[in-house]
Amino acid sequence: MRTSIATVSLAGTLPEKLRAAAAAGFDAVEVFEPDLLACPLRPAQVRALAEDLGLGIALFQPFRDPDDVDAAVVARTRERLRRKAALTAELGCDLVLVCSAVHAGAVRDDDELAAQLAALADVAAGHGVRLAYEALAWGAHVADYRHGARVVALADHPGLGTCVDSFHVLSRGDDPDAIATLDKLFFCQVADAPLLGMDVLPWSRHHRLFPGQGGFDLARFQRAVTAAGYDGPVSLEVFNDLYRQSDPRRAAVDAMRSLRHLADLTVPGTLPAAPAPAGWAFVEVAASGPGAPAVADLLGALGLVRTGTHRRGDVDLWSAGEDVQVVVNHRATSERARLSSLGLRAPRPHLLAERARELLAPVVHRPVGPGEAEIPSLVAPDGTWVQFCGPAPDWRDDFVPTGLGPAGEPSLLAVDHVALPQPFAGFDSAGLFLTTVLGMEPGELVEVGAPDGLLRSRAYRSGDDTVRIALNVGPTSATLRGRPLAAGHVAFATDDVFATARRFAAAGGHVLAVPANYHDDLAARFGLEEAFCDALREHGLFYDRDDSGGELLHFFTRAVSREFFVEVLQRRGGYRGFGSAGTAVRLAAQREHPAG
Amino acid sequence: MRTSIATVSLAGTLPEKLRAAAAAGFDAVEVFEPDLLACPLRPAQVRALAEDLGLGIALFQPFRDPDDVDAAVVARTRERLRRKAALTAELGCDLVLVCSAVHAGAVRDDDELAAQLAALADVAAGHGVRLAYEALAWGAHVADYRHGARVVALADHPGLGTCVDSFHVLSRGDDPDAIATLDKLFFCQVADAPLLGMDVLPWSRHHRLFPGQGGFDLARFQRAVTAAGYDGPVSLEVFNDLYRQSDPRRAAVDAMRSLRHLADLTVPGTLPAAPAPAGWAFVEVAASGPGAPAVADLLGALGLVRTGTHRRGDVDLWSAGEDVQVVVNHRATSERARLSSLGLRAPRPHLLAERARELLAPVVHRPVGPGEAEIPSLVAPDGTWVQFCGPAPDWRDDFVPTGLGPAGEPSLLAVDHVALPQPFAGFDSAGLFLTTVLGMEPGELVEVGAPDGLLRSRAYRSGDDTVRIALNVGPTSATLRGRPLAAGHVAFATDDVFATARRFAAAGGHVLAVPANYHDDLAARFGLEEAFCDALREHGLFYDRDDSGGELLHFFTRAVSREFFVEVLQRRGGYRGFGSAGTAVRLAAQREHPAG
Repeated sequence: MRTSIATVSLAGTLPEKLRAAAAAGFDAVEVFEPDLLACPLRPAQVRALAEDLGLGIALFQPFRDPDDVDAAVVARTRERLRRKAALTAELGCDLVLVCSAVHAGAVRDDDELAAQLAALADVAAGHGVRLAYEALAWGAHVADYRHGARVVALADHPGLGTCVDSFHVLSRGDDPDAIATLDKLFFCQVADAPLLGMDVLPWSRHHRLFPGQGGFDLARFQRAVTAAGYDGPVSLEVFNDLYRQSDPRRAAVDAMRSLRHLADLTVPGTLPAAPAPAGWAFVEVAASGPGAPAVADLLGALGLVRTGTHRRGDVDLWSAGEDVQVVVNHRATSERARLSSLGLRAPRPHLLAERARELLAPVVHRPVGPGEAEIPSLVAPDGTWVQFCGPAPDWRDDFVPTGLGPAGEPSLLAVDHVALPQPFAGFDSAGLFLTTVLGMEPGELVEVGAPDGLLRSRAYRSGDDTVRIALNVGPTSATLRGRPLAAGHVAFATDDVFATARRFAAAGGHVLAVPANYHDDLAARFGLEEAFCDALREHGLFYDRDDSGGELLHFFTRAVSREFFVEVLQRRGGYRGFGSAGTAVRLAAQREHPAG
Repeated sequence: MRTSIATVSLAGTLPEKLRAAAAAGFDAVEVFEPDLLACPLRPAQVRALAEDLGLGIALFQPFRDPDDVDAAVVARTRERLRRKAALTAELGCDLVLVCSAVHAGAVRDDDELAAQLAALADVAAGHGVRLAYEALAWGAHVADYRHGARVVALADHPGLGTCVDSFHVLSRGDDPDAIATLDKLFFCQVADAPLLGMDVLPWSRHHRLFPGQGGFDLARFQRAVTAAGYDGPVSLEVFNDLYRQSDPRRAAVDAMRSLRHLADLTVPGTLPAAPAPAGWAFVEVAASGPGAPAVADLLGALGLVRTGTHRRGDVDLWSAGEDVQVVVNHRATSERARLSSLGLRAPRPHLLAERARELLAPVVHRPVGPGEAEIPSLVAPDGTWVQFCGPAPDWRDDFVPTGLGPAGEPSLLAVDHVALPQPFAGFDSAGLFLTTVLGMEPGELVEVGAPDGLLRSRAYRSGDDTVRIALNVGPTSATLRGRPLAAGHVAFATDDVFATARRFAAAGGHVLAVPANYHDDLAARFGLEEAFCDALREHGLFYDRDDSGGELLHFFTRAVSREFFVEVLQRRGGYRGFGSAGTAVRLAAQREHPAG
């Protein structure tokens, strides 16, 4: 697949955009005209810069309102196209995107429209330039790509072909399969989007996403494009308010990642195959200085025991049975305890790392001392490390056993999930990392009204449901002020949450206090038995029940820092959610009792 | 009008919300249940706090899905209502909002629905509580308020009445006039909203605004409510993502301002009448330390002359004829030059100030020395001062003439408009200030793709079009990093922009450089004469033409600080806009040539 990206998909000036696209490995770009107009470089200089960077200029866009019922306007449009075709040639490009007309003077008659487009193609041909006609989803008369292709066929001009854009096709619910039958497909643009119920124009202008971040079936779209015999660039045209204001170098990496993943979905085997991570090896908490004892106290009260110390010191391993392993890293520079690394069990770690590298994920290597296990590690967009722990060598070999073991049967049985706070503009980027690099499946977007604004959350699961990661993003202001909802947490599973809460409290642990009003409402909402409700209240438990009768009982520890706390949960009867109905109450309680 | 606000309209904890509502002078609140559930105060304590603050609790809300086709659910719903009615009574409140059902089990038959609601009203009556039934715009079967009122009439229970909410009525395009005929109107909620083409549920949950900030005709709605004989609280229920994360004390002021203004629109004369500001007396630039000489150089090059110095020093008056007066205030603490104050001509300044005070605008008084004019001044939400300058005493009396006068005929004729940058979450707040306190009319929202993200802009005009103020807001990230689009500017009008640009350059002024690509596009887009286009290029002019042939020719000075620059413009043929088609190019040029 030849890769391309429209410059409108990235922030910055035109040269910044070109450099970012080249650095991420794109073959070509579409030059979005407003980017050129705002740029001090003349077209020939842009061409030279692109050549220096090894980038082709695949398309110049957009040329709008190409047809008109008024002959005087038609003449002016030809002159306008003549100038733009000349400019396109100066850019070293031979293709102009022509959008179906949206203005009041748009031609309704297909024959007349075809004749006008053919005349424009003649003008462009004088500059060695071809035209790709695109049906905009909100075009005045031509809005369906099949209609656009019929007009192109009527025009029957060698310099006039069709451009398809997944957004314009799929936002209308049009069947993409007929793309396979197009015989003059000049260009292919792809964009994903969340499935929003809103006017298609603002949806298109503000909410497009890179493939895999939204709800479109782009693999099917792309298979139809391939079946049409198209071998030109597949180009990302993503109008997105947040990517527009993000570092273009990071956005270009997301863009390329999404495209390589789409290529693999379209033609399986394009990326190296690798068995997905399955289960948790450990979670790692960074805690140095005064923050460290609070973490040790918390883990101890939860029944974990310090079972190992790292060969090179400064790192402890805390355990509660085989499946609850917490690495506490005291080498961190920040004194605030936080979730810093996720250890995932992986059957073939090095294959996963190789696949991740193809997806532009930064693969890093921890310093390895003699006899230590080399663990392939990635850095997620939010800075969290993700480490792939294979069967051998065992990552635990790096730790010298302390000889301590659990006192009795542990109450915590497994890591249920972790939740990671994201920077305001980083939510979709982190999601793409989880779906493409780790092969996880996204859940529904959940919105929670917190005291300082709306929190958005989405959980991702591995295919076998052994790894679950929730991404949370707070409101603009809260994200910036570092309010409590910027905390990450790990949730441990137990099979008796009452007993665990009792033991935790007895061991000096602090359960987050839950307002009594919340429990009153539980009783009213679910018709709970009085005694059961009293037990929830006594232990500071949250409760939820799903439509099938599955139940979640859970409590939260007081945060040990503004960035870290622990949840303990018990799932009953196949409950699959994360108790988001109680999240607003939990956030308010955390605001009431902030960490020290 | 008895004023109320739903706690969901404000950020913070329930006590913070109550305090903010009380401080802004509200008579009552609606308690939004999730706010209560997240609050450690028990209902009786909330009641006591509200009483201490002098606030009534007008309504408890929402009670959802009140009806069901399944008898077992109906029984559980009655028990749920019994508990919520008891809670409502504990709050010292006698009214619960009941929303029309949205769930799959909703009752379709009106008689059955009425019977179920009447039974619920019986349950509530046992606790001295009444029910206000509201048709949600997305209700499963009851979505129109007239339908809801018919069901209420069928139920014929003294404890069951109707709640109307302007959003649910007007978002559907329903005629509000029939509200006047309702005989059991128990409650009235008002919210404005921009006219968005999107699903009504997310529109309602995220984009509501305070009255006057959106596109609904709320005065008509409110007149119908009044005609119904309703004299209960008029309550703001505004679900808005940005207000949810803003300081609740400031949001409550916006809320009360919007409601008092709505009351005045509904019954003219509720607010003191005052003739609106008409024309510019002066604009004031704060510039101290090293920033000051750059401002003096800029004004000098534009042909302004230092005609006066303030009696108490440190403030200069620069003039170019009668209608171009710039006060340069060197007392400022910041060394970055910025627009700090707007002097508006007002026939009756003290009446305007009195009206502003009723609208909760902070009226401040500059320190007045002996013989100085006392000028009533307000502080706009962004911190800009707005000063009302009456016919007598003349504000210029404060300045001692320097004896200097303009050399020849001035090229600048008037202040055309000013543009003020707003903090990300402050855009709607500032707009409300301009429309209510200054009586200005809002224009269309304009979006501009700038290098660092989308800029949104809206221009406001006085009724006589003598005062024009544009509000600009940048993307989240740019607003925070203080990028160039956080600059404010003043635009002066001339009747010969070419001559003005020539004189400015000859006097050592620096015109912002415009990319050649921009002028090439102008030629292609408008079919401009080559010579005219060359002249635009030579002088660094931007150009726009409207559909009626009106033209705008304008240039920008290099910024003197990251927060201030000047525009010079010439309008021809009745052009009314602000040249926003060139704004993206201007912003990119300013990024290329940032201020020193």
